[in-house]
Amino acid sequence: MAGEFELIKRHFHYPVSHSVLGVGDDAALMQPRPGMQLAVSTDMLVAGRHFFADADPFLLGWKTAAVNISDMAAMGAEPRWITLALALPEADEAWVGAMARGFRDCCEAYCVDWVGGDTTRGPLNLCATIFGEVSPDKAVRRTGADHGDDLWVSGWPGMAALGLAHLQDRLELVSDWREACLERLHRPLPRVALGLALRGVASAMLDVSDGLCGDLSHILEASEVGAILDETLLPLEPLLAACKRTEAATKALLSGGDDYELLFAAPREQRGHVEAIGRHLELPLHRIGRILDKPGLWLQRGDGVAEALQAGGFDHFQTD
Amino acid sequence: MAGEFELIKRHFHYPVSHSVLGVGDDAALMQPRPGMQLAVSTDMLVAGRHFFADADPFLLGWKTAAVNISDMAAMGAEPRWITLALALPEADEAWVGAMARGFRDCCEAYCVDWVGGDTTRGPLNLCATIFGEVSPDKAVRRTGADHGDDLWVSGWPGMAALGLAHLQDRLELVSDWREACLERLHRPLPRVALGLALRGVASAMLDVSDGLCGDLSHILEASEVGAILDETLLPLEPLLAACKRTEAATKALLSGGDDYELLFAAPREQRGHVEAIGRHLELPLHRIGRILDKPGLWLQRGDGVAEALQAGGFDHFQTD
Repeated sequence: MAGEFELIKRHFHYPVSHSVLGVGDDAALMQPRPGMQLAVSTDMLVAGRHFFADADPFLLGWKTAAVNISDMAAMGAEPRWITLALALPEADEAWVGAMARGFRDCCEAYCVDWVGGDTTRGPLNLCATIFGEVSPDKAVRRTGADHGDDLWVSGWPGMAALGLAHLQDRLELVSDWREACLERLHRPLPRVALGLALRGVASAMLDVSDGLCGDLSHILEASEVGAILDETLLPLEPLLAACKRTEAATKALLSGGDDYELLFAAPREQRGHVEAIGRHLELPLHRIGRILDKPGLWLQRGDGVAEALQAGGFDHFQTD
Repeated sequence: MAGEFELIKRHFHYPVSHSVLGVGDDAALMQPRPGMQLAVSTDMLVAGRHFFADADPFLLGWKTAAVNISDMAAMGAEPRWITLALALPEADEAWVGAMARGFRDCCEAYCVDWVGGDTTRGPLNLCATIFGEVSPDKAVRRTGADHGDDLWVSGWPGMAALGLAHLQDRLELVSDWREACLERLHRPLPRVALGLALRGVASAMLDVSDGLCGDLSHILEASEVGAILDETLLPLEPLLAACKRTEAATKALLSGGDDYELLFAAPREQRGHVEAIGRHLELPLHRIGRILDKPGLWLQRGDGVAEALQAGGFDHFQTD
């Protein structure tokens, strides 16, 4: 069996493109651009919780990089460097090689240098930490949503949740849509270009990882506001087409996680600007509601009645 | 049971002293000092491998921060910011609180801002990522050791290994020394001030985490040199006093890990300078051998005979 350091050398030693020193010393070295602030985020993925233990290692590597890169998108930061620490039950070289390729492919797709890591034996666990750059005072936080702001979400949130429900035999998906839903679950595409374009436009932003309503509640709490969603504006079309069930589609949209779309508030006078950004990026941006000054989260039904919504986010320690 | 986000809020929300934004958004924000390079390193600690599952959570928190801070010391970088991702089998608030206090105490002792993290359910795993600053071209890498350089180690490496042997009933320690050995195992003190003082003095450096010979072999490989240790110069006194057995003491010194002392090469003409640094820091610095131009690692015995040494580092995936 190859030793730990051999494994690292073979699969974790990729060349870096914009770093002073990559993997192989006590630390990596990089030169931030003058005056830029650093944005930093870390995410830990655990077998049996965030992915199936028998998950395709290439896709798992991709997703581990993607969920971290998405945190940079959510701040309006440019992702630049990433580290990956890994616990493995056994030194399975084919598995490590495929996982490393997936991680690396995603990093390359987003111009991120993979600069360091750690490898040890233990229950399967992947922990990546990402660093990006953002101009001072340009980061889009969760705290700026204001009464009257529009509420927007990118793409088609809920497709990943439908893909997961299909894998778990909880739902049958129409064959034409199955692959698209599974692709969203397995190979999320962080909205980095959108996050950068929304600097100075969005008043508050985050990426939807735990479910739209649950993540929205973080914006509402941080901004000390409420929100109302408009049922008639919810982008349900592909979800309905995929599963043919209104209730399942709505639930997937409102509480499904793992899409890594951006959810953001923007002043009403930015509406044209936001729509132009969507056209420019060829990415659908859906206006789904608005920010209220009173706390709480509501759904305005098609018949005009407003009902209170549970946050319903996915909480890893909540009693089920 | 408290939800994940409640737990994070209660125990992971410490104020930051030199960061723009700490825990609570998609990413933390910090402003690097003009012109400085960033040094970044990540370490993952797994229950049953790096610590006992029933380890004191305060000490575990301390050690998790310390081993990361030590990587900055080993580069001659100033540790500045750290993140902690955590997988827990259950949401045990007392455990999390004590662990967080230990992590925080170590960070505070070394002026490191704890800026972010992640918490999830899973087999116990702690992954910290540290970022430091270092002036361009001042980082001390592993690659610069040259023929004729002195080889130095700080402190009394091997004490942590004796402490571990004692806990595992493999060795009886003299009572006067027991606490000192366990303290080195449980609460390592990264040599940050030494690392900073050795910029421009040491030609190559790392921190001893996996064992002196094993870690030395990384310097030798990176620098494409060899080394010979002088048995008569090995700092065995406290180890012999603690365990009264020459063989166990020597083994602890040469292949025991977990002390987080600095091992470094320095040109012979820097000998007086290195000694002055040790006096100034009130930290014993031991000259234990010298760098050779031919590959290999040797021990010059007291009788003058040189014998080849195995690297003998601790390799997490080596077949036992």
